[in-house]
Amino acid sequence: MEFFFRPEGVAVIGASRSPRKIGHQVLRNIVEGGYGGKVYPVNPKGGEILGLPVYKSVLDVPGSVDLAVVAVPAPVVPSVVRECGEKGVKGVAVISSGFGEVGNRELEEELVRTVKEYGMRLLGPNIFGVVYTPARLNASFGPPEVVPGKIALVSQSGALGIALMGWTQTEDIGLSAVVSVGNKADVSDEDLLDFFSADGNTEVVVIYMEGVKDGRAFMEAVRRCPKPVVVIKAGRSERGAQAVSSHTGSLAGADLVYDGAFRQVGVIRAGDVRDAFVLARALSELPVPEGDGTVIITNGGGMGVLATDAAEDEGLPLYSGPELVAFRSAMPPFGSYRNPVDITGMADPTMYLRALEVAQESRGVHSVILLYCETAVCDPLELAEGLKKEYRREKPLTVAMVGGSRTAEAVHRLNRAGIPAYTSPAEAVRAMKGLYLWKEFRGKRAPLSGGAR
Amino acid sequence: MEFFFRPEGVAVIGASRSPRKIGHQVLRNIVEGGYGGKVYPVNPKGGEILGLPVYKSVLDVPGSVDLAVVAVPAPVVPSVVRECGEKGVKGVAVISSGFGEVGNRELEEELVRTVKEYGMRLLGPNIFGVVYTPARLNASFGPPEVVPGKIALVSQSGALGIALMGWTQTEDIGLSAVVSVGNKADVSDEDLLDFFSADGNTEVVVIYMEGVKDGRAFMEAVRRCPKPVVVIKAGRSERGAQAVSSHTGSLAGADLVYDGAFRQVGVIRAGDVRDAFVLARALSELPVPEGDGTVIITNGGGMGVLATDAAEDEGLPLYSGPELVAFRSAMPPFGSYRNPVDITGMADPTMYLRALEVAQESRGVHSVILLYCETAVCDPLELAEGLKKEYRREKPLTVAMVGGSRTAEAVHRLNRAGIPAYTSPAEAVRAMKGLYLWKEFRGKRAPLSGGAR
Repeated sequence: MEFFFRPEGVAVIGASRSPRKIGHQVLRNIVEGGYGGKVYPVNPKGGEILGLPVYKSVLDVPGSVDLAVVAVPAPVVPSVVRECGEKGVKGVAVISSGFGEVGNRELEEELVRTVKEYGMRLLGPNIFGVVYTPARLNASFGPPEVVPGKIALVSQSGALGIALMGWTQTEDIGLSAVVSVGNKADVSDEDLLDFFSADGNTEVVVIYMEGVKDGRAFMEAVRRCPKPVVVIKAGRSERGAQAVSSHTGSLAGADLVYDGAFRQVGVIRAGDVRDAFVLARALSELPVPEGDGTVIITNGGGMGVLATDAAEDEGLPLYSGPELVAFRSAMPPFGSYRNPVDITGMADPTMYLRALEVAQESRGVHSVILLYCETAVCDPLELAEGLKKEYRREKPLTVAMVGGSRTAEAVHRLNRAGIPAYTSPAEAVRAMKGLYLWKEFRGKRAPLSGGAR
Repeated sequence: MEFFFRPEGVAVIGASRSPRKIGHQVLRNIVEGGYGGKVYPVNPKGGEILGLPVYKSVLDVPGSVDLAVVAVPAPVVPSVVRECGEKGVKGVAVISSGFGEVGNRELEEELVRTVKEYGMRLLGPNIFGVVYTPARLNASFGPPEVVPGKIALVSQSGALGIALMGWTQTEDIGLSAVVSVGNKADVSDEDLLDFFSADGNTEVVVIYMEGVKDGRAFMEAVRRCPKPVVVIKAGRSERGAQAVSSHTGSLAGADLVYDGAFRQVGVIRAGDVRDAFVLARALSELPVPEGDGTVIITNGGGMGVLATDAAEDEGLPLYSGPELVAFRSAMPPFGSYRNPVDITGMADPTMYLRALEVAQESRGVHSVILLYCETAVCDPLELAEGLKKEYRREKPLTVAMVGGSRTAEAVHRLNRAGIPAYTSPAEAVRAMKGLYLWKEFRGKRAPLSGGAR
């Protein structure tokens, strides 16, 4: 599977001069994304695109080609792919649609036969491409910029996957890879899980899934994966399952069956897309807590209460031992060192950092949720910079900040620095819950090996 | 209660020259906010602040004073308030803390006695102030700017209330009023509900509540209110209730009791702060649906499935009648006119607006959830401008858009134009659910009168 992510040479078959054509957008993203290997546009018309010579067939390409991205009309795809086979291409990513998803199963079968005949692998068809940030490879017609990071996103939905590429950028969510799986005619979620299991650049895998072709194989792949797997399983509801069948043609299956299987192998199930990234952000950046006992630190009593409610909803036990007394050194006399630790609206960045230090020192405290309401006495940017400096990364820390534009900027800065920060207390709690879930689930996996934490 | 919101003259007692003092910040917010009436700083030191002459006592003020905002040390408050009584002040908003919330109940009782003696009303003590955008009155030490709108926010938490003032601004959430109720020694949630019931500038009331003093009175006030009331009741959980008692000293009470009471009078209960504004945004801007039958329009099948799941979770029935066929005119041949209506990733703004028109025309469709995944063929800003122009406001419309920075800007534009837009399909569904809840609940209210829709 490596050749989809770190190809030695890439051909774009169906490359176009017209910026409105997908065959142009993919080529441009590869070239402008800074991919280090050779790139070969292929189009029977020949000529030049984006300063690169165009080859009339992939067979004319002088160098070796590991990956061919195919964006030509569906009926032509099998013959083009056959040429790829002759050329010695290892993987084909077929962007073209017009196969199984519109009932054209014969053409899809023909495509799969051709690929197998030559021992190649096929991603798609009906995909928007593949992105791998460690190789600076953006072989997709999605947005050109992707924030590099440790989350691999696998999407069965095209439009949603592309939209999420844009959204992750505005939210400072770092991605190692984005893979559009489309019709999954050959490469499956299982194949990708196996790749990311061994990939040193990926810490978490997020999968948007409408259905799996082989449930047992998927479960086995999860069991082999030493990293957290977060799944958004769409089509949970009866009506949603009907919508799935008219969308990707997948059988959504009884949700209870999925739920039971997920539980058995320790899939972290996300309620929706937003929830998936709330979880993945923390899972990709933070150490797993060593034990129960969360401390909530807040400058607003109300926000502390909301987080406490959320923690109880999530079954996240709060620390209530004797070490709480130490927090008195981080608050004015009228503060409360009971958990939630209320350092009051008088708290400045120094008091916050003192409270963080107490939490980091306390042996009974194993995780920290830090809440902030914007006040005049505590500048959010100063607080963010202090946290970046003082947080030791021994215990997980999630942050929620509510306020105006400076607070929004502080949230961005923390996220860019790998401290998961949110704009609602419930999300900071949910993120922490994800780490506890993973602590529990990783026991269900194969013995920890290389890529694991 | 009118004098708290549209006072003829305002005195700031404890006005200060130091920008770090609350007595300065409140005065500055009133002056710079553009409040039209007379403003009188009061401080025994006299002199001048922000170009205004300072009076040594409220008794020295030449004009009449409806509202006195008090920010002096707690022990001095009763005598200052007595002077207000002598002056003929109608309402006092006591920002000062150090009363019941720190166990100083006697001082609080003395304050209440004094206020009653003179027939005044008391807001607080222990508050951050009061804001009423129709009068351009910002008598708070929160952020200076507040987006004018139709949502009244009542907060029992100080820090959270201030932080939410900032947050609503970055989120384009328009407010008619912000009221900090603090210790609720006199003015209660009930008093405020009665005021907002009759207030032509308010469409929805959002209350952050840790506890109520008189449950029956609150329920009666809700019953009298012809507008939606959204409540975030903090301290739902056992541990959260303990946190409430150490925060505001309220008895959080058994959550089941609150829940039953809320249900009985038709309070819309929000899960958390974010949820409250998801709901309030739609409730403040949109007409109530005339019947069941929601249509989901999407350019991304996956997003349509996620919204369908969310709709089933929320018990929101989707339309499935014969009129769906009309949506064929808004999509390419491979689209799906089943609900969710999938106009496909090829959809441009024209197809979206055609789909909206069909939904607006169809007699069986009573509400519309429009979803958008950012694509190259459909510019999000063009779509937003089209929606602003073509949406007729006869049936409720909520929007969810997922994508990059242009999509984020489109969401802002829609919200500024009064079309509730969100960044997740689940939130657009939840917002629509709020309208159906209100349709159901308003039957529990007193006969509709003036301010009602």
